[in-house]
Amino acid sequence: MTQNIYDTPDFFREYSRLERSQRGLDGAWEWPLLRSLVPGLQGKRVLDLGCGFGWFARWARQQGAVSVLGIDVSLNMLERARAITTDDAIEFQIVDLEEAAFPAGSFDFVFSALALHYVQNLPRILKAVHHALCDQERFVFSVEHPIFTASRSAQWLPQTDGMKTWPVDSYSNEGPRTTDWLAKGFTKQHRKFSTVINSVINAGFVVERIEEWGPTPDQIATRPDLAEERDRPLFLLVAAQRRS
Amino acid sequence: MTQNIYDTPDFFREYSRLERSQRGLDGAWEWPLLRSLVPGLQGKRVLDLGCGFGWFARWARQQGAVSVLGIDVSLNMLERARAITTDDAIEFQIVDLEEAAFPAGSFDFVFSALALHYVQNLPRILKAVHHALCDQERFVFSVEHPIFTASRSAQWLPQTDGMKTWPVDSYSNEGPRTTDWLAKGFTKQHRKFSTVINSVINAGFVVERIEEWGPTPDQIATRPDLAEERDRPLFLLVAAQRRS
Repeated sequence: MTQNIYDTPDFFREYSRLERSQRGLDGAWEWPLLRSLVPGLQGKRVLDLGCGFGWFARWARQQGAVSVLGIDVSLNMLERARAITTDDAIEFQIVDLEEAAFPAGSFDFVFSALALHYVQNLPRILKAVHHALCDQERFVFSVEHPIFTASRSAQWLPQTDGMKTWPVDSYSNEGPRTTDWLAKGFTKQHRKFSTVINSVINAGFVVERIEEWGPTPDQIATRPDLAEERDRPLFLLVAAQRRS
Repeated sequence: MTQNIYDTPDFFREYSRLERSQRGLDGAWEWPLLRSLVPGLQGKRVLDLGCGFGWFARWARQQGAVSVLGIDVSLNMLERARAITTDDAIEFQIVDLEEAAFPAGSFDFVFSALALHYVQNLPRILKAVHHALCDQERFVFSVEHPIFTASRSAQWLPQTDGMKTWPVDSYSNEGPRTTDWLAKGFTKQHRKFSTVINSVINAGFVVERIEEWGPTPDQIATRPDLAEERDRPLFLLVAAQRRS
């Protein structure tokens, strides 16, 4: 089963305080870039894997989606999502991404933000997305970047010149990485860049565009502490089209 | 113009001593993986960008290629390539990759090993490759990996636990990186992973497979010093098919 640290009280309390939890999509630094990958949603049936508080689901409806199904493994997340959503065309379901399955061709767009790096069986969920999507339609997702997840010790290293650098080691050793983020024992799956991309291709998608989020000059002007995010990419964003 | 450090005596002498210069393809650690991306060459007209000593050109002929054009900017490299090649179906030309251009549809396979990270204008050479290739045919290339090229100081960092880690910083700042490899002032172009992949897609290719070379257990058994290459990827390998 996908790790469900989101339902532990300490983690959920800290997660709820994050800018992206408080402000929604506009509080997610990578959202402008991720949004640029999302196709027009007018008239589309949308699936959101790891929907959290439902920010994307509500935004998709504003963009003209006819329906949105948001799934998440966290009861805490979905309870809040339901509490702040008043739209009968949005449905939230508790589903483990390790086991999620959908009827063939039941969606016209699939989205997933920062959820797939929790999933152990990436090929399985990608096949399920391929099955769920109509042909030629898009799948857009973000995950923690392989450079961010690789190291045994995911902490900036101060350098003698006053600068700092990000450690990369164990890159080829894919699998779980446990860090202390918001709470102790936060586990995610490290995958190589090639594994992510090849898994998408092997599932029957054509990769259309890849992005690695780094702050824009405007973002740095507003939030100088984000400048360090130009030094190592935090998120990998992928846009793919269903083929074959 | 592409950096031509290969024609400086100190660099060329040191480069000539490398295992891959002495032993050819079998001396290149990543060759078995790169070879796995190369399609059947029977009857094909092959172009090799940055052909060096011509090892790939001769191998391609053994695989049944009807002709091979190898281009390189280094006179030293091509003189040796010509000296050790006795095959009228192989031609070597001095051409700067910044300016290389070929007739439309004049090749059935294009290959490039560890040359494109010297090229400043990547979109231009990719467009030239697209123009040169027949539709549906393949382009396979390797470059130094973005993780390897990013940092201001490309040196392993010893850690307090006796292990070492590879520094990544300046990742989003693309452009020249100058290191001391074999000789002082060796310059290559750092590009983000997304820039490499999107450039290939934008030039009219479909990305078919990506690999990041790390040593196999067999390679480590033979060469224990290669084990560190599992910690950070040294080379990025891309296989793409011409479309549109």
